[in-house]
Amino acid sequence: MGRDDIIALWFGEGCWKTSDKAVETASEALRDGVHFYQSNNGMPVLRQAISDYLDRIYGLKIDRPRVTVTTSGMQGLALAAQVLIDPGDRVVSIEPAWPNLSQVFRISGGEVEIQSLKPGEGRWVLDLDELLARLTADTRAVVINSPNNPTGWALDLDEARVILTHCRKHGIWIIADDVYSRLYRGADFAPGILQLAEPEDRVISANSFSKAWSMTGWRLGWLVTPPELEQPLATLTEYNIACAPGFVQLAGAEMLRNGEDEVHLLRKRLAEAYAVTAKRLTALNRVTFYEPQGAFYCFFAVDGMTDSLAFAKKLVKEAGVGLAPGIAFGPMGEGYLRLCYAQPVDRLEEAFTRLQKAMG
Amino acid sequence: MGRDDIIALWFGEGCWKTSDKAVETASEALRDGVHFYQSNNGMPVLRQAISDYLDRIYGLKIDRPRVTVTTSGMQGLALAAQVLIDPGDRVVSIEPAWPNLSQVFRISGGEVEIQSLKPGEGRWVLDLDELLARLTADTRAVVINSPNNPTGWALDLDEARVILTHCRKHGIWIIADDVYSRLYRGADFAPGILQLAEPEDRVISANSFSKAWSMTGWRLGWLVTPPELEQPLATLTEYNIACAPGFVQLAGAEMLRNGEDEVHLLRKRLAEAYAVTAKRLTALNRVTFYEPQGAFYCFFAVDGMTDSLAFAKKLVKEAGVGLAPGIAFGPMGEGYLRLCYAQPVDRLEEAFTRLQKAMG
Repeated sequence: MGRDDIIALWFGEGCWKTSDKAVETASEALRDGVHFYQSNNGMPVLRQAISDYLDRIYGLKIDRPRVTVTTSGMQGLALAAQVLIDPGDRVVSIEPAWPNLSQVFRISGGEVEIQSLKPGEGRWVLDLDELLARLTADTRAVVINSPNNPTGWALDLDEARVILTHCRKHGIWIIADDVYSRLYRGADFAPGILQLAEPEDRVISANSFSKAWSMTGWRLGWLVTPPELEQPLATLTEYNIACAPGFVQLAGAEMLRNGEDEVHLLRKRLAEAYAVTAKRLTALNRVTFYEPQGAFYCFFAVDGMTDSLAFAKKLVKEAGVGLAPGIAFGPMGEGYLRLCYAQPVDRLEEAFTRLQKAMG
Repeated sequence: MGRDDIIALWFGEGCWKTSDKAVETASEALRDGVHFYQSNNGMPVLRQAISDYLDRIYGLKIDRPRVTVTTSGMQGLALAAQVLIDPGDRVVSIEPAWPNLSQVFRISGGEVEIQSLKPGEGRWVLDLDELLARLTADTRAVVINSPNNPTGWALDLDEARVILTHCRKHGIWIIADDVYSRLYRGADFAPGILQLAEPEDRVISANSFSKAWSMTGWRLGWLVTPPELEQPLATLTEYNIACAPGFVQLAGAEMLRNGEDEVHLLRKRLAEAYAVTAKRLTALNRVTFYEPQGAFYCFFAVDGMTDSLAFAKKLVKEAGVGLAPGIAFGPMGEGYLRLCYAQPVDRLEEAFTRLQKAMG
């Protein structure tokens, strides 16, 4: 826009660089000549590091064949769509959500039906009965992003259990977008379907190095799947991108093995950022605030706002603050704005001072 | 296989590391904190470097909006398939070819019909009349990999002109897999459809840093398309992988700007390797040799061989030489083997000595 004074809180990305550990590992691998094709499913050393990490943090025993390295959480979801969805297949997705989450299943020909989260008393809620009613026997898959972008809603373990039991009965695949799993405000990780699943269950968990390890621009993630999907996912990876770069994979392995302090540092920063955000957002005129349980967003209503895109543009122009319009996250997101608070406290304070002025 | 004595000539990859220029550029970018999301279509600096490169080498004026950065030639083809192909669309593909080239269109629901290259007098040939007969008005796209993997066949400019004229008449998209364009034995670059196309023509050229710049493991490529595809490709990139890593993109830009000597060095190496390969392969018992015009393979017939996979396995076991079975490149590849000669001369000499012994 030719302006350098905008405080941009619209991206799904923190402002902090990746750890030097990752930088050094990747640079060393580049110097050592790790320039060649890698196995479609990922380097054994990274697959093992993911398996070890899932054991160490979550207490989960996930064998290496169940781990597929992907070139981002997004690519993992695209592979999941390609491996599961035939044209006309019924997919149920929970919204508001980042638009990618529905679109990627539509690209594979899926017919996506939306289950809306609802603004409840102080936080977003899932109507479990409504969801189960939509999960009919002819449903191929349900897509659940928890902690959720943009609302911060998170599944609890009881809900996860009910959904898993229901999906088992009907043979429905559960695709869990777990990329914010470690950015959960209440514990070391968010409750999730994967924690309840047996190896043979129709559950795919997509994860990413982007958020918890601040590696958005590196494009690295992983899938956990039943063992039967190992070979099909290798084949589909070959037909999409062949492999993730080896030097990126080694950096990822380093972060899983020796980067837990970085996850904690990020969470500390996010806790500070959230405290400021919650206080100042609540104080804003016309705003209804909902407490996020995880991720790093607030998705809040603005009283009387009927066109979130126009309103967001106006805020950029008049306040120099960039927020994402709710409509970007599905039709029921209209009336809301998303703010990414993964920023230093002083920058957030300045943003809120500007918003306060603009919103009266 | 637990053996370290195999001379592996089965991969589509040279044995040479990427240039230090790329390594240094990427390492510097990593140190400088290029860790964040990039634009879906690629960094402006790389899109411009590609545009400049196409002008400098090919004399083509391709504006930046027509250039989309992709995370490999493969990803470019996958995006082309997603943007063009609806379920049931008719796609014509030329084989033998690397299997990915047909499969990626099948993943998007395309019905792929094969036009076979034919073993002619000393080289592989395209039956142009047969191809045109297949390119009916209800055909959505034709896929042409020239120089071709595995045969080394290359389109000449007259053939390219006839195909373009025919496809214009019927509104057929031409998807040109041009990744071996610079590895052409007769000139600085191979003749290709893109050199004849107008900006608005239904032509997509897929290219890659993997082969000419020895960057297989980096996963970086680009598409040239009509301007109308810029936005759809950005959207589809968002729903596949979001972007290529910034530090990889900067390394690619460096190679285009200052890496022409590396392309020449590779071609010198390949010319030496080819001289040995042609001489020794021709001398092998039972072998019918076809001269490749480009790429870095020989695709040769073995008299009396009816199961190329079994034969290739036998050669690994008995000779310690890894060749790719022809059947991997389509049914009409049966009876052939592919040898990648992107190796040092002494290694090739040793491989042929072993093959000579095994093949009698």
